[in-house]
Amino acid sequence: MPNLIYTLAFWAAALPTLTLANTTAVVSELESFRVEVVAEGLRIPWTLKFLPDGRALVGEREAGRLSLLDLQSGQRQPIEGLPSMFRSGANSSGLFDVLVHPQFATNQTLFLAYGIGDEAGNGLAVASARLRGSRLEDLDELYTPARLIAGKWHFGGRLALADGNLYISTGDGYDFSAQAQDLSSPAGKILRIREDGGIPRDNPFLGRAGALPEIFAYGVRNPQGMAVHPETGAVWINEHGPQGGDEINIVTAGTNFGWPQITYGEEYGGGPIGAGLLRQPGMAQPHYYWDPSIAPSGLQFYAGQAFPNWRGSLFSGSLAFTHLNRLTMDGDRILHEERLLAERNWRIRFVEQGPDGYLYLGNDDGQILRLVPE
Amino acid sequence: MPNLIYTLAFWAAALPTLTLANTTAVVSELESFRVEVVAEGLRIPWTLKFLPDGRALVGEREAGRLSLLDLQSGQRQPIEGLPSMFRSGANSSGLFDVLVHPQFATNQTLFLAYGIGDEAGNGLAVASARLRGSRLEDLDELYTPARLIAGKWHFGGRLALADGNLYISTGDGYDFSAQAQDLSSPAGKILRIREDGGIPRDNPFLGRAGALPEIFAYGVRNPQGMAVHPETGAVWINEHGPQGGDEINIVTAGTNFGWPQITYGEEYGGGPIGAGLLRQPGMAQPHYYWDPSIAPSGLQFYAGQAFPNWRGSLFSGSLAFTHLNRLTMDGDRILHEERLLAERNWRIRFVEQGPDGYLYLGNDDGQILRLVPE
Repeated sequence: MPNLIYTLAFWAAALPTLTLANTTAVVSELESFRVEVVAEGLRIPWTLKFLPDGRALVGEREAGRLSLLDLQSGQRQPIEGLPSMFRSGANSSGLFDVLVHPQFATNQTLFLAYGIGDEAGNGLAVASARLRGSRLEDLDELYTPARLIAGKWHFGGRLALADGNLYISTGDGYDFSAQAQDLSSPAGKILRIREDGGIPRDNPFLGRAGALPEIFAYGVRNPQGMAVHPETGAVWINEHGPQGGDEINIVTAGTNFGWPQITYGEEYGGGPIGAGLLRQPGMAQPHYYWDPSIAPSGLQFYAGQAFPNWRGSLFSGSLAFTHLNRLTMDGDRILHEERLLAERNWRIRFVEQGPDGYLYLGNDDGQILRLVPE
Repeated sequence: MPNLIYTLAFWAAALPTLTLANTTAVVSELESFRVEVVAEGLRIPWTLKFLPDGRALVGEREAGRLSLLDLQSGQRQPIEGLPSMFRSGANSSGLFDVLVHPQFATNQTLFLAYGIGDEAGNGLAVASARLRGSRLEDLDELYTPARLIAGKWHFGGRLALADGNLYISTGDGYDFSAQAQDLSSPAGKILRIREDGGIPRDNPFLGRAGALPEIFAYGVRNPQGMAVHPETGAVWINEHGPQGGDEINIVTAGTNFGWPQITYGEEYGGGPIGAGLLRQPGMAQPHYYWDPSIAPSGLQFYAGQAFPNWRGSLFSGSLAFTHLNRLTMDGDRILHEERLLAERNWRIRFVEQGPDGYLYLGNDDGQILRLVPE
């Protein structure tokens, strides 16, 4: 593996403090691995997606940047022609998720989620575009919110492709949690649109007066992780609950996940949310929840060859407890939770499985890291 | 509640160091409670069962004693006429579980599980008897093991009544783990017999040559918790796995839970068990597992009125991490784990729901405690 040796040598020379991260083996419950630094100096890297030619796309939320990343050298080339977006600083708006179309090799198509508007009125939008060289062309704004709100945080912002449709997670805007129960508002929802921006005929609220037809499920707070189950094809989300109510859910048509009517969380600093209810008829219980909250971001089912004992596990990053969260699964069932890399103190924003089967992470220190079997 | 006030006053006078335990409120995720000391001075209390007249039976494993316990005064009256049993000290044999027959008011019947034999050959036996005053009569040894082993630890020893039959958990004898996969051995099994000691016609291995007909499920290590689900009627067990492999399982006819062929645990001190396999065809994945191991003992679904937000939760004691383990459930699904009372440093041997809806615990300090809403 001359490229790998080159990478190690490069980092060892240029960034001596990173050498330890490269060479120390981590022994965990089911696999041993080492952590390699792939790139540094990014501004809240929020998504990493792999292109068929071996390069990757890395998106920086706060910076509103998208770049081509050489996974061997760590070198980046900025992509031009991004849509104009609302950028509002820490834990707020900017460039959210990016998806590579499954037929990218022939259609060069990407999907992008990003904030639009301004402080007085903003929301999450989704566009498609073609990547030509290092430039986006044929930008097509597929989805814009039917209502803007004066949101500061909680934009959601993850994308997934499943059953030929595009799923979009939106947040409740923090101060607008009641809208998560309001089918005329795009806030606090899982949306489902066609790749061309149309509405699929079987969307559950299509034809209901006063309901937005793009809504597929509702009652969510701030879903910053979305993943497609590699066997069932179902869309899974995680989301930041309030203090003590982070959830994992399986998205099904028309489901009300209950926020803010029911939650296992409480207000920051203590005290019930609303009536303090845990269950209500017509509202789904969480599939799993974390209490204390870990503040999950990113979500990835592992289905690679590099870590055979992790096949089927569900990974997410934790911002609050700064670790890589691994859930042992048996089908849809969660058997066990493991917290990896907690001692590194990294706020992990995403977890992606590379075409090499390695796990790639991004953190708030501006690093892209990968886990390699040891 | 004059009795309660009397109890508090009694303890405050007699045992001043216990006053704090009685009066400090514990605020947990879903309920607030205080801990009251019901009785003290027991020798490894392992089971507590409630009689229709408001008294309770308390069994001491290591002492091999069974007593009538007044829940208000904490006073005990020893029961005479117990079967002779094999008592072998710490974490070993003695009196295990006790059950009160659902028609106790008319038939006065108890079931008892206890060790028999000696160091060269021992096992778990089950008897029924009638309680007359403070004496057992009509002792009937319903079940004795078809094979004795020179076991030192891992006797299992829990009892449950479900579908009109008696379920018995047996351990693998620690040094005899291979017998958990051997259908001609009673070790490492969940047994199912009729209340009169007969074999139910639908036991899964009845009629199979070389298999013990009392076996209902197999491949377990040391199940020290067994509970009947209050809605489904299914029998649930927990068990001590090796380091990192404690499990919760739902017992179904003929199921092989895999020990020692598959486990998420490893040998104490590290290293794989057997081939180190996590999955094998024909062997069930755990319903849930704890890693690191908590060493669970006792198992109780909460279905009372005193703690409405705990209804449906599944409780067990933890010996290794000295806490009361609570699992939030949605039907059979485990949503979340909470660890209560960890700061008390109690090795909790059992959890029982009283007729008052309070939760009763026993610990290795020889105490019976109850959790009362605050």
